[in-house]
Amino acid sequence: MSDTTELGADPTDTHEAIMCGTYQALREHGYAGLSIQRIADETDLSKSTFYHHFDGKDEILLSFADYILEQFTWGLRIGSTGDPVRDLYTFLDLTLGIHPSDGDSPNTEERLATYLELRSQAIHDPEFRDKFTEMSDGYVDHLVPILQDGIDQGVFADVDPEQTARFLLAIVDGIIVEVTTRTDDQRPVLWNALEAYIEESIITAHPQRADS
Amino acid sequence: MSDTTELGADPTDTHEAIMCGTYQALREHGYAGLSIQRIADETDLSKSTFYHHFDGKDEILLSFADYILEQFTWGLRIGSTGDPVRDLYTFLDLTLGIHPSDGDSPNTEERLATYLELRSQAIHDPEFRDKFTEMSDGYVDHLVPILQDGIDQGVFADVDPEQTARFLLAIVDGIIVEVTTRTDDQRPVLWNALEAYIEESIITAHPQRADS
Repeated sequence: MSDTTELGADPTDTHEAIMCGTYQALREHGYAGLSIQRIADETDLSKSTFYHHFDGKDEILLSFADYILEQFTWGLRIGSTGDPVRDLYTFLDLTLGIHPSDGDSPNTEERLATYLELRSQAIHDPEFRDKFTEMSDGYVDHLVPILQDGIDQGVFADVDPEQTARFLLAIVDGIIVEVTTRTDDQRPVLWNALEAYIEESIITAHPQRADS
Repeated sequence: MSDTTELGADPTDTHEAIMCGTYQALREHGYAGLSIQRIADETDLSKSTFYHHFDGKDEILLSFADYILEQFTWGLRIGSTGDPVRDLYTFLDLTLGIHPSDGDSPNTEERLATYLELRSQAIHDPEFRDKFTEMSDGYVDHLVPILQDGIDQGVFADVDPEQTARFLLAIVDGIIVEVTTRTDDQRPVLWNALEAYIEESIITAHPQRADS
């Protein structure tokens, strides 16, 4: 990244502006329709500023993937509450957005759509594939101790923690596909189904859960 | 579509050649990297032949989506065997490819990757969104009677057939995301997890299943 910035702006601010512009352009035009011009149109920056910071569109998009993955994974830094049921639902809230019946931030679908758009680039792009494999494995490393803790406490059934963690991630990804690529909103029915799966297949008791 | 074809070929053959070329070009370059030139490079046809048949790239890709969805949904025409467990697993075999431990057709991952690549276009493209909503609802219409049949026979637990069908589709989509966008092969662990879910949450008995 160059430290030459337009209008004397802080380089960090310029980078942030480029990332925000990329987010907006991706939402409007999709990955296949992205261009540096279209990203620049979403910012107050000139195309030449972009070339001070990045070699080209591909480099911007890789940097944008890091920017988004950072946002998706910050929640992993939250420590355990000691209640594995609560920790499990907190993880699902963070990856899927808040339960729709509890109210929802207005941009949840946009955020999930951006995630799926970037993730589908991993089909062809080995650098994206590496990034998302690392992200998913980070999720597994977060979930396995939660599941193991629940098993040890007798709150969860004696499931295989890693297999169950990977299955939960697949379910999360599948719900994201359904939520972002259909004409209707499948979140209520799929969230109910996910809760039913967790209640029937993972949780055996709620000795420590405070529901009220 | 025009009936003017190159080399006097049958228009159906020309359409098929364009679809096959599109499939190859999509595998090589991804959706964002597609162009009519790149599709033409995968065929013996000239670019002008493409413009006889289609108005442009977007129209080719919509037609290609129909072509792929037709291949994905032909299995829905298979009638019930009367054994809901077998019917359920046949459906999953068709949507996910054969169980990896039973041997696998070499192009399963490519086929699933093509599906995900097209499906992710539905994030931005209302025509793709309509197509995939219709496809998914067709899957639900296929699964619900299988689940209801199993419940009526006492083979399946008393699940909500539509919610369970939609959850199964989300799981299938999530497994497709994991299988096509990571650096390793998650199929064995995810298929085992899917079987465990079906055995624990859906199937209550196997009175009619012939496992041998």
